[in-house]
Amino acid sequence: MSIKLSTIPSLPPDDLNKKKMEAKTIEMVIKIGELQHKMYAEGKQSLLVILQGMDASGKDGTVKTVFADCNPTGIDTYAFKKPTDEEFAHDFLWRVHQKSPRKGNIMIFNRSHYEDILIQRVHKWITEEHVAKRMKAINAYEELMEFDNNTKILKFYMHISPERQQEKLQERIDDPTKNWKHKAADWDENDHWDEYMRCYEYAINNSYIPWHIAPCDKRWYRNYYIAKVVLSTLEAMNPQLPLLVKEND
Amino acid sequence: MSIKLSTIPSLPPDDLNKKKMEAKTIEMVIKIGELQHKMYAEGKQSLLVILQGMDASGKDGTVKTVFADCNPTGIDTYAFKKPTDEEFAHDFLWRVHQKSPRKGNIMIFNRSHYEDILIQRVHKWITEEHVAKRMKAINAYEELMEFDNNTKILKFYMHISPERQQEKLQERIDDPTKNWKHKAADWDENDHWDEYMRCYEYAINNSYIPWHIAPCDKRWYRNYYIAKVVLSTLEAMNPQLPLLVKEND
Repeated sequence: MSIKLSTIPSLPPDDLNKKKMEAKTIEMVIKIGELQHKMYAEGKQSLLVILQGMDASGKDGTVKTVFADCNPTGIDTYAFKKPTDEEFAHDFLWRVHQKSPRKGNIMIFNRSHYEDILIQRVHKWITEEHVAKRMKAINAYEELMEFDNNTKILKFYMHISPERQQEKLQERIDDPTKNWKHKAADWDENDHWDEYMRCYEYAINNSYIPWHIAPCDKRWYRNYYIAKVVLSTLEAMNPQLPLLVKEND
Repeated sequence: MSIKLSTIPSLPPDDLNKKKMEAKTIEMVIKIGELQHKMYAEGKQSLLVILQGMDASGKDGTVKTVFADCNPTGIDTYAFKKPTDEEFAHDFLWRVHQKSPRKGNIMIFNRSHYEDILIQRVHKWITEEHVAKRMKAINAYEELMEFDNNTKILKFYMHISPERQQEKLQERIDDPTKNWKHKAADWDENDHWDEYMRCYEYAINNSYIPWHIAPCDKRWYRNYYIAKVVLSTLEAMNPQLPLLVKEND
């Protein structure tokens, strides 16, 4: 079954109480921290969280909130920007593969290898044939993480409406504490909104590892939604604190 | 058509004259150096040479001879040894992908990711199902290098007879200048010769990018054979020195 983003709500369900959900989120964030500690101590499996979405969809805010209680020793975040000259001199997965989590760790990708079939495709910097080959290579890479490094991969599409995005981009201009996030180029990319949606749908519908579509119009629901998925995933991974084996027992 | 190594000669053809072939090899080595210079200057394509073979099959000697005339700035060699703790905490291709050649360069792998379906398989450190998954991942990785980084991959199986290998291992004991290469463990691995051949055949017959079977019983013919393949590959890549475009022309 293929996903059509325009048919999926970016707002929370109507009947939810914001205050109650925020309290639940805090409880989950604490549990995420506890499980991360166990996973680090165990050192046998890892978690890769991929956050992909349009500008102002809430990637940074998610990292700050959902993983607030994790010990920085066992968690890393990497924000993929425009490739450097050295990165451009290699295949598109070269810089990504290096950042794969080591066993015991959580790694968060703020943007990812998917940019290489999103922005590059929207602007026609690569051919459609090349896009298909990259999609295949992405699937092979993610499958490799799973079977050869015991890595669980969680992919979130940060689903925001174009209207809500405009509001949040405007906040960056109006609110001096958010000015640092303003980039004029972000507004230009919005001219390509429909094309971005089409490319996201292609990535989502052709992925070996399924995506979660996170409704991101409200920060409090976005945090709740993502924390819930992360927590249930860590619970299923069920990391165990290693115990000393006493020699004379 | 599947390859059976025992049916392929590891000795040179009978009618060859050693002195003549050595002279031809020197000519080719010089041309390889010239083409490497052009490829480096051009900066658009790269070459990955993979040398795989049993101990004493001649991997080090090949690097030293065939690439003797290359400018070290544009060529690198990496000898894959037992993985470090950090490498073991990642998937088997993690350390390999990092060493992929940048555009313009030659990279030589002395041993490679194939060890992960050779020594690991022979000693049954991984399951047969895992071997099949790794083989698929290897093919995806090599395909990625080709289509996304303009990398030509040359793979050589260093074909040596078990009798000739014994002689060369013995030289390492008898000749003080070669003592440094002696490792007692190399002799132990020979107990598994037939199993290694079976695993090499699997890798060769399941590879997306074909292998060259280099007859390695004689050093002079091994060098000639490999230099010839490398040279004809570089010629086909046809690197061009970039010229200044004069603005007022």
